[in-house]
Amino acid sequence: MNADPILRPSPISASVDFDADGIQHGHLRLPWSRDDSAWGSVMIPVTVVKHGEGPTALLTGANHGDEYEGPIALFDLARTLRAEAVSGRVIIVPALNYPAFRAAKRTSPIDKGNLNRSFPGRPDGSVTEKIADYVTRSLLPLADIVLDFHSGGRTLDFLPYAAAHELPDKAQEDRCFAAVAAFSAPWSMRMIEIDAVGMFDTTAEMAGKVFVTTELGGGGTATARSAGIAKRGVANLLRHAGILAGRPELGETRWLDMPSSDCFGFSPEEGLVEFLKDLGEPVAKGEVFARIYPLGHTGLAPYEHRAALDGLLAARHFPGLVKAGDCLSVIATTAENA
Amino acid sequence: MNADPILRPSPISASVDFDADGIQHGHLRLPWSRDDSAWGSVMIPVTVVKHGEGPTALLTGANHGDEYEGPIALFDLARTLRAEAVSGRVIIVPALNYPAFRAAKRTSPIDKGNLNRSFPGRPDGSVTEKIADYVTRSLLPLADIVLDFHSGGRTLDFLPYAAAHELPDKAQEDRCFAAVAAFSAPWSMRMIEIDAVGMFDTTAEMAGKVFVTTELGGGGTATARSAGIAKRGVANLLRHAGILAGRPELGETRWLDMPSSDCFGFSPEEGLVEFLKDLGEPVAKGEVFARIYPLGHTGLAPYEHRAALDGLLAARHFPGLVKAGDCLSVIATTAENA
Amino acid sequence: MNADPILRPSPISASVDFDADGIQHGHLRLPWSRDDSAWGSVMIPVTVVKHGEGPTALLTGANHGDEYEGPIALFDLARTLRAEAVSGRVIIVPALNYPAFRAAKRTSPIDKGNLNRSFPGRPDGSVTEKIADYVTRSLLPLADIVLDFHSGGRTLDFLPYAAAHELPDKAQEDRCFAAVAAFSAPWSMRMIEIDAVGMFDTTAEMAGKVFVTTELGGGGTATARSAGIAKRGVANLLRHAGILAGRPELGETRWLDMPSSDCFGFSPEEGLVEFLKDLGEPVAKGEVFARIYPLGHTGLAPYEHRAALDGLLAARHFPGLVKAGDCLSVIATTAENA
Amino acid sequence: MNADPILRPSPISASVDFDADGIQHGHLRLPWSRDDSAWGSVMIPVTVVKHGEGPTALLTGANHGDEYEGPIALFDLARTLRAEAVSGRVIIVPALNYPAFRAAKRTSPIDKGNLNRSFPGRPDGSVTEKIADYVTRSLLPLADIVLDFHSGGRTLDFLPYAAAHELPDKAQEDRCFAAVAAFSAPWSMRMIEIDAVGMFDTTAEMAGKVFVTTELGGGGTATARSAGIAKRGVANLLRHAGILAGRPELGETRWLDMPSSDCFGFSPEEGLVEFLKDLGEPVAKGEVFARIYPLGHTGLAPYEHRAALDGLLAARHFPGLVKAGDCLSVIATTAENA
Amino acid sequence: MNADPILRPSPISASVDFDADGIQHGHLRLPWSRDDSAWGSVMIPVTVVKHGEGPTALLTGANHGDEYEGPIALFDLARTLRAEAVSGRVIIVPALNYPAFRAAKRTSPIDKGNLNRSFPGRPDGSVTEKIADYVTRSLLPLADIVLDFHSGGRTLDFLPYAAAHELPDKAQEDRCFAAVAAFSAPWSMRMIEIDAVGMFDTTAEMAGKVFVTTELGGGGTATARSAGIAKRGVANLLRHAGILAGRPELGETRWLDMPSSDCFGFSPEEGLVEFLKDLGEPVAKGEVFARIYPLGHTGLAPYEHRAALDGLLAARHFPGLVKAGDCLSVIATTAENA
Amino acid sequence: MNADPILRPSPISASVDFDADGIQHGHLRLPWSRDDSAWGSVMIPVTVVKHGEGPTALLTGANHGDEYEGPIALFDLARTLRAEAVSGRVIIVPALNYPAFRAAKRTSPIDKGNLNRSFPGRPDGSVTEKIADYVTRSLLPLADIVLDFHSGGRTLDFLPYAAAHELPDKAQEDRCFAAVAAFSAPWSMRMIEIDAVGMFDTTAEMAGKVFVTTELGGGGTATARSAGIAKRGVANLLRHAGILAGRPELGETRWLDMPSSDCFGFSPEEGLVEFLKDLGEPVAKGEVFARIYPLGHTGLAPYEHRAALDGLLAARHFPGLVKAGDCLSVIATTAENA
Repeated sequence: MNADPILRPSPISASVDFDADGIQHGHLRLPWSRDDSAWGSVMIPVTVVKHGEGPTALLTGANHGDEYEGPIALFDLARTLRAEAVSGRVIIVPALNYPAFRAAKRTSPIDKGNLNRSFPGRPDGSVTEKIADYVTRSLLPLADIVLDFHSGGRTLDFLPYAAAHELPDKAQEDRCFAAVAAFSAPWSMRMIEIDAVGMFDTTAEMAGKVFVTTELGGGGTATARSAGIAKRGVANLLRHAGILAGRPELGETRWLDMPSSDCFGFSPEEGLVEFLKDLGEPVAKGEVFARIYPLGHTGLAPYEHRAALDGLLAARHFPGLVKAGDCLSVIATTAENA
Repeated sequence: MNADPILRPSPISASVDFDADGIQHGHLRLPWSRDDSAWGSVMIPVTVVKHGEGPTALLTGANHGDEYEGPIALFDLARTLRAEAVSGRVIIVPALNYPAFRAAKRTSPIDKGNLNRSFPGRPDGSVTEKIADYVTRSLLPLADIVLDFHSGGRTLDFLPYAAAHELPDKAQEDRCFAAVAAFSAPWSMRMIEIDAVGMFDTTAEMAGKVFVTTELGGGGTATARSAGIAKRGVANLLRHAGILAGRPELGETRWLDMPSSDCFGFSPEEGLVEFLKDLGEPVAKGEVFARIYPLGHTGLAPYEHRAALDGLLAARHFPGLVKAGDCLSVIATTAENA
Repeated sequence: MNADPILRPSPISASVDFDADGIQHGHLRLPWSRDDSAWGSVMIPVTVVKHGEGPTALLTGANHGDEYEGPIALFDLARTLRAEAVSGRVIIVPALNYPAFRAAKRTSPIDKGNLNRSFPGRPDGSVTEKIADYVTRSLLPLADIVLDFHSGGRTLDFLPYAAAHELPDKAQEDRCFAAVAAFSAPWSMRMIEIDAVGMFDTTAEMAGKVFVTTELGGGGTATARSAGIAKRGVANLLRHAGILAGRPELGETRWLDMPSSDCFGFSPEEGLVEFLKDLGEPVAKGEVFARIYPLGHTGLAPYEHRAALDGLLAARHFPGLVKAGDCLSVIATTAENA
Repeated sequence: MNADPILRPSPISASVDFDADGIQHGHLRLPWSRDDSAWGSVMIPVTVVKHGEGPTALLTGANHGDEYEGPIALFDLARTLRAEAVSGRVIIVPALNYPAFRAAKRTSPIDKGNLNRSFPGRPDGSVTEKIADYVTRSLLPLADIVLDFHSGGRTLDFLPYAAAHELPDKAQEDRCFAAVAAFSAPWSMRMIEIDAVGMFDTTAEMAGKVFVTTELGGGGTATARSAGIAKRGVANLLRHAGILAGRPELGETRWLDMPSSDCFGFSPEEGLVEFLKDLGEPVAKGEVFARIYPLGHTGLAPYEHRAALDGLLAARHFPGLVKAGDCLSVIATTAENA
Repeated sequence: MNADPILRPSPISASVDFDADGIQHGHLRLPWSRDDSAWGSVMIPVTVVKHGEGPTALLTGANHGDEYEGPIALFDLARTLRAEAVSGRVIIVPALNYPAFRAAKRTSPIDKGNLNRSFPGRPDGSVTEKIADYVTRSLLPLADIVLDFHSGGRTLDFLPYAAAHELPDKAQEDRCFAAVAAFSAPWSMRMIEIDAVGMFDTTAEMAGKVFVTTELGGGGTATARSAGIAKRGVANLLRHAGILAGRPELGETRWLDMPSSDCFGFSPEEGLVEFLKDLGEPVAKGEVFARIYPLGHTGLAPYEHRAALDGLLAARHFPGLVKAGDCLSVIATTAENA
Repeated sequence: MNADPILRPSPISASVDFDADGIQHGHLRLPWSRDDSAWGSVMIPVTVVKHGEGPTALLTGANHGDEYEGPIALFDLARTLRAEAVSGRVIIVPALNYPAFRAAKRTSPIDKGNLNRSFPGRPDGSVTEKIADYVTRSLLPLADIVLDFHSGGRTLDFLPYAAAHELPDKAQEDRCFAAVAAFSAPWSMRMIEIDAVGMFDTTAEMAGKVFVTTELGGGGTATARSAGIAKRGVANLLRHAGILAGRPELGETRWLDMPSSDCFGFSPEEGLVEFLKDLGEPVAKGEVFARIYPLGHTGLAPYEHRAALDGLLAARHFPGLVKAGDCLSVIATTAENA
């Protein structure tokens, strides 16, 4: 209760040996006592592949439980990767916030925990905080390069991009953006995180790791196209790191920028949303590109949502209805706009 | 209690006069007593536009509450249609299962009623059955042509098409397919309904109406593109009926067919679904076009979902996770396949 | 399944003998199998007092589970009535929709049944329908006079009145209004029920009984004053019927009328409601007597609710927030208005 | 809607061919449209084993979803039975109310349906009624002998017995009791069903089948002992029917009787229950064999529950807390008592 | 994580400029990520009116979400106050715990936060703690005088009074009671808070502000009378502060006192509550002024609730049913009692 | 918030005087403000018996709310213990986590608090933490010997044993095991707690108390046998402590040991569990003693659960279905195994 939590061991135990050669499929077991199982556990699937000399990549999906490109690419990788193909080590956790993933929710149904706001975590905290703590203290120290998959989830939809953050250590930043380029998504993003507290990103970057994240679609689904981007991207990254042989298969990528908080458009009204532009289409400052109809009456004028800057529609609210305060749109700029 | 319900009046009262000229915006008020409002009501928005001579079109959206192209097109039409532009009458109910629409659910949160399985309804039934009964006995008799918008909703995604049923009365069937052609969606469908019990379609067709329905996308959202198809389609239909002046703006449409129950693929397993083909792409009989990964273990082979016939992927399960028994895919044939 | 339900016996069994002399306290036991009790029951408290010669009064409270004047008066009567004071029989069911009463809800938490819309009931129906059926077929035949207590419940508030219906049998109607007068609430009401289907009232009246009902306040509470009205009223009624000795203690009562459906005012908007008049205060046709403020914005004009006729405010929506479609007010007329 | 439901086909389709030789494992697929799967289904596992000449046995478990001896015995039988060992046909449905079984509830989470009160069912009814209808119209006609496993479920606990009903057709009754004897549970019961409406038992018996049911324990679990009774019993029954070779392995069984409704003891109080006798122990008329402590106060006298007849404790309320109206105990008599 | 939260900025951003002249209506936007909106926000309406020289009043309603006199008075003030009438500044937040207000609950449905026990709050805490922190660090420093409206909410009912606390700084205390007198409710209260931890009151008083609070009724509603008291009170307070011109309209007020914890009466039993006295009526020490009937049986003696001191009934439990441990009554003393 | 919580007083007040002679029945009242009772409380029943000279025993049940042997023994003791029989003091709290006990859940429905992981508690924490804090700071200091009853609850079942921990202070350890022996359950256990953080046990042991705990069955029920063990055990313990006269009634007990974490078997799969051994039966290392059948398919091989060591089955998962990660079994060793 009063001891420094950092001194307490994690309650999570792994059924795999991260130092053993070959392929192991197992679980991270997190004890979770509850009304319907006094001595129950959360069982997070994990795969470790270790062979030869080389760096360690930590690959994680379903940090948010309703984002699917990462889990698809990683469940696929976990069953198809051959140990002999690896130089170094690959740690695969396809569904990091496993309770959220099983519930098809952004956050954990156990504690409403948003894993990506729970870092660095606590060994004596909630289930979500315990997962974050295990990543921070047990998995991250093993890794040289980290890929954490994201998409928009049920309520947002994104142009598919890989991304890294601008960092104080420019050499680290360069390594991160080189990894983003190697991922080779159709779009790539330079991010300045305004509120980085609690993120896996921040924790990994502060630990000096090469960290790559993505937004590869959304809506609570994955398409053949978006899953394909994820699968190619992770293979590219492993090649880039030298863990897999060969060179990344590079495709065309366009670089995006979010220059200010004006990029984010919030809805002041609830209602039925009609977008007049789709993802990737250009919008001009002042242009009405979405309307919000009041739900209970016909014949009323809809609220008109206008662009605060020139750019293209990089992300949008996904569900057909919108609540007051929801993020309705993200407008990004490109080299073409700049 | 035991009297023939058909003799009982509907409890729904309209605040608009369907026989008055001009534009009226109002509500269908359905008394709904409940714990949090002893004398409460459901208030379904309705617009009536009447002017000059001509037929009556009944336009309905949100028969299922999580399908948005119809409500967008109809809220838009209700506020933009000018009475003088009309020859005849247009009755617009943009959110027919209004409780479901407000809840963003397929079915009504009040009674779990699937409106499109509740026809012809009952005046002394559940809230959903009362809505169906009002449509059957009060709105349908006023109409010559009926357009009922559908999309895939939260859990399915469709190629955008308008559709009609094969009917015993071939003259009626011809009128219906002519209306489908006038709607001019990118795809058009000839449907044989295997289980037509309880549908609005069946009730309207048995009443001799020209009935057009659609599937215009899905996933619980609408895009600029899909909403545009809906808006253009309803305008085309009103032009086709002579209610609006001018000729339909016809674009290219491809006709689809679902020749047998083999078109529908169900999942025998629960898991994470990876589609290998996207909507509109061709699939060959026997081809694996989706995989289902078990959720709790890495390293296991996914279930492989194969096509039962040659065709193209016309609809798919939308959420990233699938349950055993869910419809995973619909394969349609085209003239090209035939 | 298909047999006439009227021929099936009620599943309810009484632990009291309605034909035995003296006072008995017991239960009506209604078997109710469910997940948390495979062989469970609903236990509805009942008291029977029988002594000497005279008519039978059936006294019921909590027909709606969140109305408290009736249960207070009847639990009090059940414990204080002495058999020797009775000439005839008194059957007391203080909490008729017992599951609703325990849940402090208008309707039953078991089946959402509104008991006063479930008559005459079914022996093979829902729990609420089984209660109604037992009343109809087992209790009503024993009774000469019926008093069914109501108040506004959680969501409505009423001026305190006793009431009866205008009936086709004018002799019966006269007996009913004589009983209302004997009850001697501060207000008395002549009612024309527009939609009488499913009501206990209708079932009792069609069986030729003297039937009195009340509205004695509301808001999901009772005051010392309103409970006092109920206690005095039921004693008066028993005196009037000759079951208790003595004459009713008559106070002043004012007679109210609801001349048309204009009496009922519904809210077209949701919001925060401000009444400008309290119960019993006069309103003039066209007068704004309530405002509804939108919830999400300051600075907007509230919706203004106007009186459709001259009268006084006889009932109002109780909670601070109102939903579109809620009954906001009932305006009654008095002899003074007439 | 209005047509005789008996003329409508069942919506359930089987993936197995009941007329094919050999072993087939498959599903009964019941379409179930809902908010989280527009075109979803319930998938009820089924096994058919057919070989040679002989009668057909229909074996069902989890008629109530929280009773486990039946499912254990039948999942085990389905995977271990060899076709060559069979003379005739065995149809195994280990989890008949599959939604309830998955939810570990007595009734279906979909519609709260108690399957054993839903017979003969309806093809256009609730999910539970559709299952009952399929059994009645599709499975029962195939069967000569029916074994439907029951236990006490989460809220009751029983002495382990097999049972049959006294029937008007004494030859059929004799066949049923002979089958009970062959099952050879530690206890055997002769039952007179007071309220047989809606039961699978009644439907099967009216169709002239040999019908055996059981109560083999309870509490929402199975023990090695109780599962063993079930496994041995079903094998014995198949031997008795001639479907498996060999003679039943008979153990000692004691016959029980429930002579009147006095056997059933209901609790008038809610509280913490303390049994003073365990299952199988004798109780004497008037003996206090259970106490119920009020929950909110110490120092109060508990309610004392007394035996209404001499006998032994054959069943009891299982959870530690009891509600008013719950069945607390069943006392049976034996030949020794008689 | 470990940094002093006081150093972290609030995540709340205001769309109004508190330093600009004139009237502004806007929102306090609080980012709130959740399953149904990954990048959603809570939007708390706010109005600022600034003009000329003078002090700043901070006016807040719905600190508890089910108390309505404050929101009515403040939504009304926000739309009717003219900038020119103001000398100084008025900051109006009619629904401070906006999520609770929308849910019509005392506490926030998001985090169950009781705002008035969440002060001074945390910028990295729950949604409710973030609101408290914003008030503490951003709004309070702007204010000279603070009026925080309360009523009894759904479960309590109060005599209408304004109140202030006895404070260690007697000059501050005097200013507070002068403001209470200016508010001029029918009753006024001197309060000694026994457990002041977490209250807005305490935070504002420790910051040296003139702080006035109220209890103006309850039951989850407002009457024309109680709303009128609130509207007149806030105008009086602004006049008293010199922000509005003119003198307060003073009516008669009676001063109340709660001399000890004996004032508070708790129920040891659950049941149906009958009050024998109404608010404002005198009670004598030892007098039974409420009864609690057991819910499940007729014929039992009710629990009798007695007054622990002479006084008048100042507050009472509102709902018709009471739980063990609920506060049943508050008895206050007046100068007449003293 | 800012003060050291240890310096804040507990919000709990006792209606009994722990220093008064004689028997008192009362409550620990814990204020609990919530939506349905603004000024409500949790009322935890407590009994104190004090007489003559001697030590103080603190006896607690329902630390977990679904474990019944303790509450039965303690409600019984509280009503039957005569003050004159006592030398010293007995403090009885039969339902320590009273909200959990009322809900029949392991944890509190208020805050999901697992009381036995909430020690030493906080006076400003959740309801569960407040209870723990009150025990730690108010009750424990009064006690010399503590008996905290446990059983398996709804989801586990145990051989009936009393237990104590190996402790650093061997004299204290000896006193504890002497008390365990005096309790004289059929089985006795020496425990090494691997993760003792937050337990009542640890808090009491660190305070130097003689601490005895139990596991006396499970499944969410109690039998006549298991309740009898509890009643005899608590009487024995009071005799052993000299609080009651006489010597403990000792029966045979067998001592168990859990030598390593191999004792605990977890399920890697979800499914239907079939145990092949019952509690108390021997198992051999490598033996399959449970099977887990997949739920959705017949004909698949079950998962086979094997013993990791020789021993006997001391505890098992209780419900018929198991989730991945649940503790399936505990194997203990005995002197016979050693």
